[in-house]
Amino acid sequence: MSKINNVAIVGGTHGNEFTGIYLLKKWRESPDIIKRSSFSTETVFGNPNGFRDNKRYLDCDLNRQFAQEDLANPELMNYEQSRAKAINTQLGPKGNSRTDLIIDLHNTTSNMGPSLIILQLDDFNTQLAAYLMQKMDDAVIVLEDQVDMKEHYFLCSVATRGLIVEIGPQPQSVIRQDVMDWMEEMTLHILDFTNKYNSEAGVTDIPSSFTAYRYEETLKLPLDEKGNRVGMVHKNVQDADFNVLRKGDPIFTLFNGEEVTWEGDYEAYPHFINEAAYYDNNLAMSLAKKVEIDVIR
Amino acid sequence: MSKINNVAIVGGTHGNEFTGIYLLKKWRESPDIIKRSSFSTETVFGNPNGFRDNKRYLDCDLNRQFAQEDLANPELMNYEQSRAKAINTQLGPKGNSRTDLIIDLHNTTSNMGPSLIILQLDDFNTQLAAYLMQKMDDAVIVLEDQVDMKEHYFLCSVATRGLIVEIGPQPQSVIRQDVMDWMEEMTLHILDFTNKYNSEAGVTDIPSSFTAYRYEETLKLPLDEKGNRVGMVHKNVQDADFNVLRKGDPIFTLFNGEEVTWEGDYEAYPHFINEAAYYDNNLAMSLAKKVEIDVIR
Repeated sequence: MSKINNVAIVGGTHGNEFTGIYLLKKWRESPDIIKRSSFSTETVFGNPNGFRDNKRYLDCDLNRQFAQEDLANPELMNYEQSRAKAINTQLGPKGNSRTDLIIDLHNTTSNMGPSLIILQLDDFNTQLAAYLMQKMDDAVIVLEDQVDMKEHYFLCSVATRGLIVEIGPQPQSVIRQDVMDWMEEMTLHILDFTNKYNSEAGVTDIPSSFTAYRYEETLKLPLDEKGNRVGMVHKNVQDADFNVLRKGDPIFTLFNGEEVTWEGDYEAYPHFINEAAYYDNNLAMSLAKKVEIDVIR
Repeated sequence: MSKINNVAIVGGTHGNEFTGIYLLKKWRESPDIIKRSSFSTETVFGNPNGFRDNKRYLDCDLNRQFAQEDLANPELMNYEQSRAKAINTQLGPKGNSRTDLIIDLHNTTSNMGPSLIILQLDDFNTQLAAYLMQKMDDAVIVLEDQVDMKEHYFLCSVATRGLIVEIGPQPQSVIRQDVMDWMEEMTLHILDFTNKYNSEAGVTDIPSSFTAYRYEETLKLPLDEKGNRVGMVHKNVQDADFNVLRKGDPIFTLFNGEEVTWEGDYEAYPHFINEAAYYDNNLAMSLAKKVEIDVIR
């Protein structure tokens, strides 16, 4: 167990996800809210020009620009590629980072509630997940450990430890109070937890395991042979993030009225259902398996 | 009562309101769905380049470009100003229009359900409103008659009669099945109604009055003296479109936690609550008064 000395909270990695941006503004005006005794906390505005233009990004998705080889490639020069290098200098460098923990704040148009996405199973992440589930009734833990942290292209992979706070449903370019309340609550719990984690006693009185949704695969929207969309998410699945989907359940409705069923061979838990930002790539939703994870001591 | 010979259905007046755009595509492939015996139906894609760029508009809001003097002003040359002139030529000209009825299809991020916005009280609109309320349990009638139709800058004011079908909640750049089903159902009811209206018997068996929400005023988000947002829609009001708001009810929450109450002197019915597209102008919501309207024969 290594102590966490420096924490960075990043908001506005996507310029049209407003909650983190306005929380950063609030915390910069009242820094005591995010101050804790055992570590320093700083805030970073990920994509200010995306926010200025009210867009997710200007040139490319900032949260896909942090692979080691891309950070090292001077030919990648557009706005987000440049911001990635600047953030890596400010908080990293990745692999030998001066920042011990990055908390990256995101919104989704999907009905995911207050979700924490963790990227690997270790003592910090598993204890935090168990702690959060205890503190917040609605909290959901999503585990995306299909790629090693060091190989990741996410912004939060710049630090030794990285977390994504992902809260919805919220349309792009909107501020909802329920979503902001959830995001602030979850972030402050993470800071409190980190303070306990740093203490001599460590984190006590948490359950020995927790339920998580482990990423399995991504489904595309129904397309014709030319790549045009010919259908949409079925109304039974819309807003039903983290509700089980079984073989034979309707999953898409084609514009001609036909229904398409899911024919997978496992109990799937859809999330990121009908996320606006994923239409670029015609992604309809992610599927997870529900798993019970032991807390690592 | 003058017969309606030519109907135009417009989708994609705003490029990131997807439902009308995909319905147009469907109806162009299956034109029988929108064909009726007593009039011709055509479809028009309002802002195709907005859709291409996944934006509400490129240069300015297309649905604000149809004032007579703007249509007549050759100095107004940007994309939407040019589209307005082209649409006026195609469907109008305004004031002497070859199109008798325009149905303009819109989405909102607000929880307005299937709403019909009518711009004046006449036999056609009032009979239609009563008919729709009878056919669709969830239908809501919004009356925006504060400006004379001929003075209006809305696209649908190009025709003799104009309607706005406004369905939500739907994030920008997303297709929800429930919203698409509502929009198609309402549009087909309007076409059925128009067919009856054209018949010798006229529209029979409808109630003699209906409930509507008449536009009263628009509220701004809380701003500081520099024009920066310092608050958001209160969580009690979020998603509560067409629920009554009374003097003293909380309406905004400031980012510092303070609540702001509504101090108006009438029972207000908010709608377009927290609509993403209205953030440009820091508009928080519209307020209406609930009124009972007699059907005009």
